[in-house]
Formats: sequence, structure tokens, C-alpha cells
Amino acid sequence: MSSKPAIGFAGLGAMGFGMATNLVKQGYAVTGFDVYAPTLEKFKAAGGVPSTSLAESARDKPFYIVMVATAQQAQAALFESPDGGIVSALPKDATLLLCSTVPSAYAQGVEKQLKDVGRDDIFFIDAPVSGGAIRAAQGTLSIMAGASSAAFQKGQWLLEEMSAPKKLFIVEGGIGAGSNMKMAHQVLAAIQILALSEGFGFGARLGLNGKDIREAVIGSEAWSWMFENRSTRTLTEDYFPGASAVTIILKDTSIITSTARLVNFPASLSTIAEQVYFSAVDRGWGANDDAGLVRLWTSEPVANIQSTLSDEDKKAKIDLVISLLTGIHLVAAAESIAFAKHVGLPLAQLYKLAVDAAGGSAMFKSLGPNIIEILEGKGGETSSLNSYLNRLKEAVGAAQSIRSPVYLGSGALNLLVAAGKELTLAELLKLYTVN
Amino acid sequence: MSSKPAIGFAGLGAMGFGMATNLVKQGYAVTGFDVYAPTLEKFKAAGGVPSTSLAESARDKPFYIVMVATAQQAQAALFESPDGGIVSALPKDATLLLCSTVPSAYAQGVEKQLKDVGRDDIFFIDAPVSGGAIRAAQGTLSIMAGASSAAFQKGQWLLEEMSAPKKLFIVEGGIGAGSNMKMAHQVLAAIQILALSEGFGFGARLGLNGKDIREAVIGSEAWSWMFENRSTRTLTEDYFPGASAVTIILKDTSIITSTARLVNFPASLSTIAEQVYFSAVDRGWGANDDAGLVRLWTSEPVANIQSTLSDEDKKAKIDLVISLLTGIHLVAAAESIAFAKHVGLPLAQLYKLAVDAAGGSAMFKSLGPNIIEILEGKGGETSSLNSYLNRLKEAVGAAQSIRSPVYLGSGALNLLVAAGKELTLAELLKLYTVN
Repeated sequence: MSSKPAIGFAGLGAMGFGMATNLVKQGYAVTGFDVYAPTLEKFKAAGGVPSTSLAESARDKPFYIVMVATAQQAQAALFESPDGGIVSALPKDATLLLCSTVPSAYAQGVEKQLKDVGRDDIFFIDAPVSGGAIRAAQGTLSIMAGASSAAFQKGQWLLEEMSAPKKLFIVEGGIGAGSNMKMAHQVLAAIQILALSEGFGFGARLGLNGKDIREAVIGSEAWSWMFENRSTRTLTEDYFPGASAVTIILKDTSIITSTARLVNFPASLSTIAEQVYFSAVDRGWGANDDAGLVRLWTSEPVANIQSTLSDEDKKAKIDLVISLLTGIHLVAAAESIAFAKHVGLPLAQLYKLAVDAAGGSAMFKSLGPNIIEILEGKGGETSSLNSYLNRLKEAVGAAQSIRSPVYLGSGALNLLVAAGKELTLAELLKLYTVN
Repeated sequence: MSSKPAIGFAGLGAMGFGMATNLVKQGYAVTGFDVYAPTLEKFKAAGGVPSTSLAESARDKPFYIVMVATAQQAQAALFESPDGGIVSALPKDATLLLCSTVPSAYAQGVEKQLKDVGRDDIFFIDAPVSGGAIRAAQGTLSIMAGASSAAFQKGQWLLEEMSAPKKLFIVEGGIGAGSNMKMAHQVLAAIQILALSEGFGFGARLGLNGKDIREAVIGSEAWSWMFENRSTRTLTEDYFPGASAVTIILKDTSIITSTARLVNFPASLSTIAEQVYFSAVDRGWGANDDAGLVRLWTSEPVANIQSTLSDEDKKAKIDLVISLLTGIHLVAAAESIAFAKHVGLPLAQLYKLAVDAAGGSAMFKSLGPNIIEILEGKGGETSSLNSYLNRLKEAVGAAQSIRSPVYLGSGALNLLVAAGKELTLAELLKLYTVN
């Protein structure tokens, strides 16, 4: 037995297993709960203590981490398990980390429920994570955490064990602020994941090979982290199951839009993306990698397309794809940061977090600081964005002429058009500023 | 031979055949051109004079009607035919009616081209029609016509031969005004056609039988002409080919969005509808009736769904469908009338035209006059629309919880949310007012 404190852990999925076994490697006695027996076997083999009871996994554990998939599962595990659940079994003054991605309103609901059941002795931290299974297992995740300072005093060391040194973001605002920060980041992810398939799909219908598109986009204004990351799978049709299922980004997208409804924010492009994700689930693609959404546009593998275009024509058509992606990413940056402002997040922190993370894009990087200045009333440049508007118009017009849907591109265009004849960031942001 | 003037006619499709043979019945010598030989045979049998040459069909005809399917076809027939085409063959001072549905910019382009080729002696009328094949054959179409008063003096009698007495709308504004009026009307059609499938599809996933939905919607605030008309086909799966193909409403929708791009108008819901129509064409449904778009939500015939809901539950779920449609139709009314304002159309005329036509809806009827007063700066009521907003939120939230796409409903909701916390028509219309 280690002299380090015992830790309970619920939810040994791809992320949770990596997080829990990393803590085992760091020398902690980790008692892990999961509903799936083979996972518990694997966890035992990795040095963990398996448990088939939530209450047992929590008994005598001064620290507990919840990493189940959804708010519904978290609610069941914390409060509604037949064996009494985690909360009733935790010792006095325990520290509870909710690392699942949940709506901020749910995290705040947990805080209230702890009070209602007489357990406000528990130090609760709202701490969603990001970074994928590999970084989970390395203990180098990004973590966005909100809590009282008392809770951080108790639990920050544990957040540090799981995160990379510069990737632990303590978000001002208490419980809910961590979840909101993750949500604002996921606005970029939700939009930019669909955008890359829209770009490849539109390009395929223009007669472009996916390899040519990838080569041109990376290093251009149309770059996004998601594009670079997912496009390797798009080019190899690595969708079955690939690395990240459609249902995963759909879940995060639904958190964005349900929170948006709750707080009256028009999350326009995120909403469009959600509807398309629903359509993909309807096609039976929910468990497939989200890089395979390109199949909504073409059943032909995009790396196999034999381009018969002249060099000049090819260049012009690649420019259309770049214009499409750039226009979408421009609006995505505005939507993400404006939503963060709407829910009271520190914007500079969102920028720092997202610019080098999965939500990053060339547009977010270049325009983000300006967007923040405008939203914070500190001026900000108001130079014309008409060239982006005109290029997006060209791309959407070209898509129309070949009857290719461009769900996000056409939605982004309508926002840019609505922003006014002389398009500036300030005018675009007004569309996201609800009185 | 009749003593009435000879008329040339190009484009004997479903609509054109009815229009041309109606004129034959009225005693005119009509020379009809079509590319499809069996149609010419049929036209001959109906008493028309068939022609396989555009130039021949126009030679010595003081009146000529073009009723081909698209602007591209019109351009070819008027100016670019190998035999010289219609324009070069028309006699001096002929009257030319373009009855095809085309972008207003194209109608204006024809006016300019007539000048450029030295044929501004021709009296040109921009006169798109609406009403379907049966009314075409009866000579009781709706016609929206724009032209110079000199051209109307020459050609109005012919418009009257083809239209019902109260359904000939002379639109102020010259060439392009007729096409713009039809376009503003089709904003309602483009949105409301998809809306009914969205309503039935969402309802099906809630476990509602389509017959129960139809019964509840007709007579409610969620009524639309399109709903009442199409839903009989939805309930009987009369899609193959049904009465109106997806490609037909798609063509009109693309006229809306391409004109919107040209004149900088954010036609948000029309754009969403267009993307979904593209998806339906991708599924191979282009030639099927648009009432079959419900198959995007369910493969089960909606009239066969065995509802296992309690009466109370059923009522609550039907209310969700009604809230969804009502919210969509509310925004559709705003989008249609605001677009009409944007292109300078007389709004009272649009109201009069659409309220009893295919674009009609209970929301358009009740809110239209108020929308017009606001857009014309004459005040208008500014009572709260928050109940519509809240009901639409409920419907979109319910759709999310069962993973049902609601493309238009979620798009409409974002517009209502963006309009502000205290939702009024005036605030909603600001989103459609581009500076």
C-alpha cells in the first residue's frame, strides 16, 4: 500500500481508464468502478483495485474522481445508485472531482444537491478534461476547473497529477465555470469537425482529390487543429471505429445548444452542426469516426478521386474550399468567444487554452485577440472583413451550382451578410450580443 | 384561322402545356415549341400548331410566351438557339412574356440584352406564374407581372386570359418586380414545404400517428396552405412521382438564396431549407414529391404508426409539433416580407397575394399586417412574442432529447433568441434589416 491518499474512481472508459491507471502508476491506491466486467479485469491487471459497487468504491476515500460519459450517468452514480451511490459513502470532508463533460447547469445542480442531502462538507470541483486517451494515460491532459478556493486547496494537487504543467486552467467563477470553459472550447470543435468533412465533400464534388486539399489547407488561413488531425483519417477512411465517434462530438454539441437555450444565446453554427450530426446518427454512423462525415457528400474515398482538372482550374477550386473553411472558422471564432462572454468566462484564458488545443484554427489565432478586445469594450480593430464575405459568397455560390450542400458555409455566410454591408468583427459580434 | 392574334409559345411542360392549350381553347392560333416530340404530338392533337424550330415558332407572332423551366433554358431559347432563337425572329413591336420563374436579375438581363441586340422595340413583360397545372389549363393562374406601362398596354389582355380575375398582380417596379414578387412568395413556400415534413417526422419520432397530427394542425395556429395541401400525400405516401418534385421547390429556393447573395439579404431559413433539399436530391429523391421529405426522419409510413401514448401524453406531444410549426411559420413570415422590403416590393400587395395562396399560413395571416407596418416605419404593435419563443424552445429541446433533427425549428429558434430577451416582431425584423 502506498502512503499516498486512496482515490476512488468511477467510469473506466477510454479516457477514464487512462486517467485511473496513470494515478496507479504514480503510486496511488485507486479503487475503480465500472459497469463493464472485462474493464474491471483489465484495471486489476494494471494494478488498480476493481469494485462492482459505487458505494464501496467511495467508502473511506478522501478523494474521488467521476469520469462517466454523461450527466445522466453522473447523477445515477453520485446520488441514485441502489447501493446508495458515491456521495452517501464518501467520508467527511472528502474531495470530489467531476471530470465528465456536462452542462454547467448540471455541475451547479450537483453543488446544490450536495447541500440538499446534507453533504456540503464535500469539497466539490467541476473539472472537465480534454486531450484524448493517450494524454489521459500520460497524465498530461488539459483540465478546465472551477470550484471554491477551499476546494482547490484540497484538490489542486490531484488535478496537477492528471494534467500537463501548462494545461491546468483554474477558471474564475466557481462551480460551472470549468464546464462552461470546456463548452466554449467545444463550440470550436463542434463546428470545425463538421467543417473539414464539408470542405473535403465540397472539394470532392468539385473534382478535387483529398490529398491535394489537405496539402493546400495545412499552412493556409483555412488551417484548423481538427482539420490537420482528422484529415489523416479522412484520407485513409479510418472510420471503423477510428479514434472519435460521431456520438462523442454530438454529446458535446448538445451541451452547447441546450446551454444556449437555457441562457438565451444564439449558437447558430453549433446548432447547424448538431442537426447534421443527428442526420449522421440516423444513417447509422454514430459509432464511426467523425472524420467519416464526408460520406454525407460522397461515397467515393476522397483520396481516390482522379482529378482531371487543369492546374489552373484545380488551383481555383482549391481556393474555393479554402474560402469555405476560412469563412466557417471566422464565424466559429466569433461564436465561441461571444458565448464565453455571454456566460461570463475570462476571455483571455479561453484564448490561451484554445489557441494551441483541439479548437485551434488560423482564424481563431489571428482574430481572437481582436474579438476579445471588442467584446470587452476595449476598442479592437474594426477593419473590413469584406474579402472573407466575398470569398465565402463565391464558395457557397459554386456549391449551389453543383447542388452540394454546405450546411456550415451557407449558415456562416448568412451571418456575415446579416452583419452588414461593411462587414467588421464588431458588426458580426453584435449578432451574438443578445439584449 | 382565328381573327385573334397569333401567339408563339416555348416550353410545353406540365404548366406550359396547360397554358398553351387554354389559349387554343380561347380561340387563339398558338404555335408551340418543345424539345420533346411526343409533347408536340399531344399539342397538335389539342388543336395547337407544333413547331420544332424556335425561330419558326416566333416568326410573324405579335405575341410570344416563354414558359421553359429555367433561366438557362430561357437564355438559350431567346438568344442562343442555332436557328437564331426567338428574339431575332419576332416581328417589330412584338410583345414578349417571360413566364418562367427566374431570378429578377435574369429578367433584367433580358431587358438589357434586347437593347444590346437592337430589339428594344419588343414590349417585354416579366410575368412569372403560380397555381399548378390544373389552374394553368383553366386560365386561372396567379400571375405576378412587372413591365413598363407601354408593355402592359400591349400585353395585359393576354395576362388576363391566363389568370383568374383577382389573381393578376401588376407589380410596380418594372422588369424584375414580377420575379421578385414571386420570389418573396416562394420564401414562404420553400420554408413551409420542408416544415411539414419536419413536423410529421418529429411527430413520428415522438410516437404520433400522422393522421392525428394532420387533424390537430389544420385549424390551429400551425396551419399552412402547404401543410394542408401536402399532408394528404404524406399520409398516403403519394410521392412517386406525386404532384410536385423536390427539384421544383429546390429550383425556386436556389433563386431565393442566389438573389439573397446578390443583394446582401440574410435569407436564413430559406438557406437551411435549400441545404436539406440538396441532401434529399443526394438520396435520390429529387424526382419524388416534396411531401416525401418526411423520409429524412422515418422510413415508416407516418399514417401507420401505432401510437401507444396516453391521451394526455399524445396531446402534449401534438402540442410540441404545433409549437415547432408555429415558430417556423412565424420566422418564415418575417423572412418573406423583410426580403420583399429589401428588394423594394410593395408589401401590401405581397400580403394580398400570399395570404390566400400557396404561401399562406395562419401566422402570415395574423402577423403579416403588423410586420408590414413595422417595416414601413408606421409603428406596428410591439407586443411580446415570448410565448412563441418559449414554446419553440420546448419543441427543440424535446427533439434534441430524442436526437431528432429539426433543421428549420432550431434555425428559427436561434433567430428568435438572437432577437433579444424581450422578443417582439420589431426586434426579430431587425435581424433581417441589413445596414
